[in-house]
Amino acid sequence: MVVSDQSCPPETETNSTAFVEGKLAEYRDLVLDMLLGGLPTDGASGLYDLVRSYPSRPGKGLRPALCLATTRALGGDTAAALNSAVAVELFHNGFLIHDDIQDDSHYRRGQATLHALYGVGAALNAGNATNLLALRRLMVNRSTLGAGLAWDIFRETEIMLGHTLEGQALELAWINGNSCELSDSDYYRLCLKKTSWYTFIYPCRLGTLLACRGDFSVTALDRFGWYLGAAFQIQDDVLNLVGTYDRYGKEISGDLWEGKRTLMLIDFMRRSSGADHQRLRGFLGKARAARTAAEVSWLHQRMLELGCVDYARRAARQLVVAALAEGAGALAAAPESDDKRFLLALPSYVVSRDH
Amino acid sequence: MVVSDQSCPPETETNSTAFVEGKLAEYRDLVLDMLLGGLPTDGASGLYDLVRSYPSRPGKGLRPALCLATTRALGGDTAAALNSAVAVELFHNGFLIHDDIQDDSHYRRGQATLHALYGVGAALNAGNATNLLALRRLMVNRSTLGAGLAWDIFRETEIMLGHTLEGQALELAWINGNSCELSDSDYYRLCLKKTSWYTFIYPCRLGTLLACRGDFSVTALDRFGWYLGAAFQIQDDVLNLVGTYDRYGKEISGDLWEGKRTLMLIDFMRRSSGADHQRLRGFLGKARAARTAAEVSWLHQRMLELGCVDYARRAARQLVVAALAEGAGALAAAPESDDKRFLLALPSYVVSRDH
Repeated sequence: MVVSDQSCPPETETNSTAFVEGKLAEYRDLVLDMLLGGLPTDGASGLYDLVRSYPSRPGKGLRPALCLATTRALGGDTAAALNSAVAVELFHNGFLIHDDIQDDSHYRRGQATLHALYGVGAALNAGNATNLLALRRLMVNRSTLGAGLAWDIFRETEIMLGHTLEGQALELAWINGNSCELSDSDYYRLCLKKTSWYTFIYPCRLGTLLACRGDFSVTALDRFGWYLGAAFQIQDDVLNLVGTYDRYGKEISGDLWEGKRTLMLIDFMRRSSGADHQRLRGFLGKARAARTAAEVSWLHQRMLELGCVDYARRAARQLVVAALAEGAGALAAAPESDDKRFLLALPSYVVSRDH
Repeated sequence: MVVSDQSCPPETETNSTAFVEGKLAEYRDLVLDMLLGGLPTDGASGLYDLVRSYPSRPGKGLRPALCLATTRALGGDTAAALNSAVAVELFHNGFLIHDDIQDDSHYRRGQATLHALYGVGAALNAGNATNLLALRRLMVNRSTLGAGLAWDIFRETEIMLGHTLEGQALELAWINGNSCELSDSDYYRLCLKKTSWYTFIYPCRLGTLLACRGDFSVTALDRFGWYLGAAFQIQDDVLNLVGTYDRYGKEISGDLWEGKRTLMLIDFMRRSSGADHQRLRGFLGKARAARTAAEVSWLHQRMLELGCVDYARRAARQLVVAALAEGAGALAAAPESDDKRFLLALPSYVVSRDH
């Protein structure tokens, strides 16, 4: 991927954090009301009560917001899209539950992870139930939106699930296989599969379908979502190194403990030499449980000193420029609206956020 | 549930183990060829190669056999049903992978479990991918069977997934909450949700739908599947106590280590008294890791001495009689065929099997 080395577009009223967060809260209220109100209240304890946990914690609600904003920016109807936006958020929560088990993460959205609270077995099951509830939402579309559109949304879902699982597998294979010869383009390929697809491309594609406007191809916002997703993931990785727990809600440096192949770690692999490089390889070659706080602290410090975090931040800013250009082009024919402004303000937002 | 205390129907040629196992092998060959041949060969390593593992190990292939046998017994076409039978088997394998993680089982089909081989993260992901591949199979039905039938199969799948997840959650809640006041009917409710639905009722329902014969209701074989599932699960639990590893392929007494609420353990809870009862409660109150081989051995011995295994075997034989009566009634209008004979031989088979 080639992107020009420009700085961020200047801050304006419409791409301000306050505007984006106000819109996010507006979309989130709609989605959470329907999501939480629609969860089964019967059934065995230890299932739907666990499903309720993550969605009830404070979150940005970025994915359903993208779905609703795209629908509305392209002239579609909120009421018709809301059910699918709820499905998007449910899938996200199902992925988070499983992801936390896979990474053995301890904190999510400022509280203990589900498997830390209830054990791996119950949490794994709750993740599956969350995904099933998402599928049920998509099945409801058949009676409200018609069989054709409901089917198109199913197909996009199946594509999204495939990319996401393959992305997860790729990341785990790098960690478990102790891959030390990765390039930036390996990282970007991972971002596309693991992050961009389900967080940005999929919600935008659903929004485009739900707007039911033949003048927009379902793939119109793909490149917007792809660049935006990479910028978002880099910022997420940066926050894991330099954020504060209060704002970020996950353990700081958790990625280093896990040996996660971030753009910063790949940069450090490439640029470190001599004793640094040997020490890094030794660290990554160990099982997670064998890594020490002193080693994590050393790695953290050296990555900052070698400028790896700055390198990643520059890359994210370049991606923001590319995302904005792609988004503006794709939405050129859409009339001005708060929803369109929200979408085009997102690139700046995702790299300026601190949580 | 009221069932009469009769012994098994007498052994005849058609319900012999050899006949059932011959038919199982015939169905399994069809299904495994399509299943393994259809797995993606590209994608990240650590995903589809893991998906391939369990289906490649020796298994009975009971669930797809039920689907195909029902279709054929009711006059349907093998070729049209095969794709859905593959989906049934994929779901089963996806459940097994997740189930092994949840129970921390060490062996499956005579080899190490997937998470024991590749870690929880990669195995969890492979379970999800297996379920996704099953969903993809069901999506293919739309073009081969038409949108209406494909949709009906989707709806049955959604219902089955809900029961299965709720059953899993119920069982985990009993173990984690150390439930000690359970009755036989609690156990049978668990069997219905956790075992009967996905192993028997779901494949029979799909077979009935796939036969496309309006003179058979989709629920025609529900009670057959429900009794058969309970008998199957009891036998599975019995084999876990008295089987041999060579034939059974799982660790013997694993259920005791897990504190799994089998009909036999519930019987022991009810019938043990004094020191036995106190010792049982002490054992179940511990975390799995704190239980000792001496305790497991004691519990095993006392359950045999108190006749808990005999009690469970009698219950299974009663269920076999009930299943056979229900099956014969439901299939009375179907012409004689090997497929019908296979279905009606299954009740005796599931309680006489040693693996």
